[in-house]
Amino acid sequence: MLEDLKITVCLQNKALKTNNLIKLTWGNVSAIDRASGLIVIKPSGVDYDDLTPADMVVVNLNGEVVEGKLKPSSDTPTHIELYKNFEGIGGITHTHSTFSTAWAQAGRSIPLYGTTHADAFCGDVPCTRGLESAEVGSEYEANTGKVIVQTFSAENYQSVPAVLVKNHGAFTWGKTAEEAVQNAVILEEVAKIAYLTEMLSPSVQPAPEYLTQYHYLRKHGKNARYGQR
Amino acid sequence: MLEDLKITVCLQNKALKTNNLIKLTWGNVSAIDRASGLIVIKPSGVDYDDLTPADMVVVNLNGEVVEGKLKPSSDTPTHIELYKNFEGIGGITHTHSTFSTAWAQAGRSIPLYGTTHADAFCGDVPCTRGLESAEVGSEYEANTGKVIVQTFSAENYQSVPAVLVKNHGAFTWGKTAEEAVQNAVILEEVAKIAYLTEMLSPSVQPAPEYLTQYHYLRKHGKNARYGQR
Amino acid sequence: MLEDLKITVCLQNKALKTNNLIKLTWGNVSAIDRASGLIVIKPSGVDYDDLTPADMVVVNLNGEVVEGKLKPSSDTPTHIELYKNFEGIGGITHTHSTFSTAWAQAGRSIPLYGTTHADAFCGDVPCTRGLESAEVGSEYEANTGKVIVQTFSAENYQSVPAVLVKNHGAFTWGKTAEEAVQNAVILEEVAKIAYLTEMLSPSVQPAPEYLTQYHYLRKHGKNARYGQR
Amino acid sequence: MLEDLKITVCLQNKALKTNNLIKLTWGNVSAIDRASGLIVIKPSGVDYDDLTPADMVVVNLNGEVVEGKLKPSSDTPTHIELYKNFEGIGGITHTHSTFSTAWAQAGRSIPLYGTTHADAFCGDVPCTRGLESAEVGSEYEANTGKVIVQTFSAENYQSVPAVLVKNHGAFTWGKTAEEAVQNAVILEEVAKIAYLTEMLSPSVQPAPEYLTQYHYLRKHGKNARYGQR
Repeated sequence: MLEDLKITVCLQNKALKTNNLIKLTWGNVSAIDRASGLIVIKPSGVDYDDLTPADMVVVNLNGEVVEGKLKPSSDTPTHIELYKNFEGIGGITHTHSTFSTAWAQAGRSIPLYGTTHADAFCGDVPCTRGLESAEVGSEYEANTGKVIVQTFSAENYQSVPAVLVKNHGAFTWGKTAEEAVQNAVILEEVAKIAYLTEMLSPSVQPAPEYLTQYHYLRKHGKNARYGQR
Repeated sequence: MLEDLKITVCLQNKALKTNNLIKLTWGNVSAIDRASGLIVIKPSGVDYDDLTPADMVVVNLNGEVVEGKLKPSSDTPTHIELYKNFEGIGGITHTHSTFSTAWAQAGRSIPLYGTTHADAFCGDVPCTRGLESAEVGSEYEANTGKVIVQTFSAENYQSVPAVLVKNHGAFTWGKTAEEAVQNAVILEEVAKIAYLTEMLSPSVQPAPEYLTQYHYLRKHGKNARYGQR
Repeated sequence: MLEDLKITVCLQNKALKTNNLIKLTWGNVSAIDRASGLIVIKPSGVDYDDLTPADMVVVNLNGEVVEGKLKPSSDTPTHIELYKNFEGIGGITHTHSTFSTAWAQAGRSIPLYGTTHADAFCGDVPCTRGLESAEVGSEYEANTGKVIVQTFSAENYQSVPAVLVKNHGAFTWGKTAEEAVQNAVILEEVAKIAYLTEMLSPSVQPAPEYLTQYHYLRKHGKNARYGQR
Repeated sequence: MLEDLKITVCLQNKALKTNNLIKLTWGNVSAIDRASGLIVIKPSGVDYDDLTPADMVVVNLNGEVVEGKLKPSSDTPTHIELYKNFEGIGGITHTHSTFSTAWAQAGRSIPLYGTTHADAFCGDVPCTRGLESAEVGSEYEANTGKVIVQTFSAENYQSVPAVLVKNHGAFTWGKTAEEAVQNAVILEEVAKIAYLTEMLSPSVQPAPEYLTQYHYLRKHGKNARYGQR
């Protein structure tokens, strides 16, 4: 069942590690097969080096395991909420990457300070509100997804495919698992450069919108012309 | 004598180095065999690359060498104090890892700013008081252990298995040497993210306790459900 | 056509990656053959690991592709402006390297704080003014080059072969592509040390000019005596 | 001539690079044979990867090349001043390692904040005064050595075998080239931890002298008991 997607999800989970976005087992990648509505996700607490495609877990949008001998990631209900609400996406990552998590712990969105950021994210990378006690007490992981969804509008989840969850960490997404992982790499670098920018100039202002729009549209949308398209 | 434990302790000492927690010979790992009350520890000042299981030193809880041709780590009396007082632990590390040591030199406990921290440590990672002149002048290494023990209560040494020794460095522990090393990895990353969090937001507040408790209990205790248990 | 230069440009693009100046495909190196006025440059959006000399694109100073199956870097018009105006140069790099980009996002020139900087750059590394809306709206990449050229005088583009483009990233150059890449390595390290210097001493002053001049002239110009010349 | 020392000096120059203390060709190691008064030093501007023992240059205490086809390091006169004045030393390093150079550019000595520092350096690592214009204008490299010597007393050059040269970089020394390189590794780590300490606690005070003295004497002097001695 979904053998190709299992290979992809397995390799992209390992890619989180090789891109230095992960310590120990702190992160996960999933992908969805939109035709069947089935999600392939990393098993919980397994070392990236040990993962094989056969270890991947298949769950449906109700969170029920459809195939797999292992338990799925404890963050599976968060992934499900995102797949249900962000219909244009095919892959999701969750990490505690260092600089992204620092912004999340500070409860701050990452301002759009330059073209490195704008090439991937067409606006600030938002930080969610904190979850209320009741939201943590019951269905915490699903509520994490719901709070992420509240943070976005119907349009901008595709132009800003990344979020910081307050006091927690980062989620990124994309049309595929590969694109989601690439966005996780970009988010961490953007988070680092924005940190350093503020240290160098505490009163720094965001880059002008005419510049950041230009850069975003050079790489995205129907008039994109970056790369070999 | 304790051949399996010597292999474990040897490998876990090398793991400190491969996890970039160590410069030169600045750190050590030990484990205790509770049945016999014997401790296996790294020899003093030997390079991690050169260590073999046969180089490990066996000492008893009085600090006497029971087996081994080499001198044990100069920090052995600190380890002994922890084993005597923290009865639930089986392994200990000592490092001068970069960010952990910076918090120790600043004389500051690491506040609980997020779930990355709470997944491993159910509260601030405390910084000990400084040792008095008399405590340094006589039995310094044992007194270091005693000051660590004073910093904890009978319960919380298991829920916060890490400490910063003021002006010195870090100790972590766990049920096994492997778990102690894993806690050393986590401590350094938590110390780094907390540092960055304060730089981004000097007035940042700790994460809400309902959130951090939830995360800690998801991974620890009888209702833990993270991983493949 | 220009087979040796294609090999050089291919290898120097890969060198950006091995020197940790690049994430994903965020950078490029070119070189010019002054006899023919032809430029060899990286194709747009191709992974550094996959690049072969045959992938390199040859363009003329009007920006027309003279040879190559792939589209040239989207930054090609910036390179062309620099080659047209800085007649003494033979190679150019563009990167978003971390610390250099932080200074660019902060809109700040890098002050000349010490001999590490002065050994390569005989003065502050300037940050350009930001581009106006109209300059972004039409011929953005060529205008980026024009704004860089405005930032330098006829003399100092050779004694300070590096620039920060506001809200964007870094360009460096040199007599050859190899020298341009070496200057990109130096720029990033100088940007990092200057950052740390200001954090340690917010009121720090530039190094005395008699010291920095001495260092620059020890390595550059007709009386240079560093190395095996 | 001095074949063993050439091998040592060659390997220790490469060690600067493998310990990440060096970019490009920015550093050098020398050693002295006290019996003959001859110094073995790195040639100027040669890549560390290419160095062979046969490339090493032998100079006497007057700075004259006694053997070798290549020009010696441009910093040779600084090394000579240190060998002439610090009679107990056998090896010297010079680097522009990142954090050490930041302290040097800030013109600040590194305060003694903890035992990591005290295990190697029994006091602040001093920053020299800046050189005067006349000292740069004539015999700059020898004057750099003289200013370093002025910074120390007859005793403390052995208990603090490291210095920051204002606006420049670091020098370390030891009984051998190996010990000098080890001190360069320690200096960079101590410089980094001290930086982070000040960021975490701007009003931090030095560690108590009874603690730092204890640590220094545990590793140094006739009552040292660290390691397998």
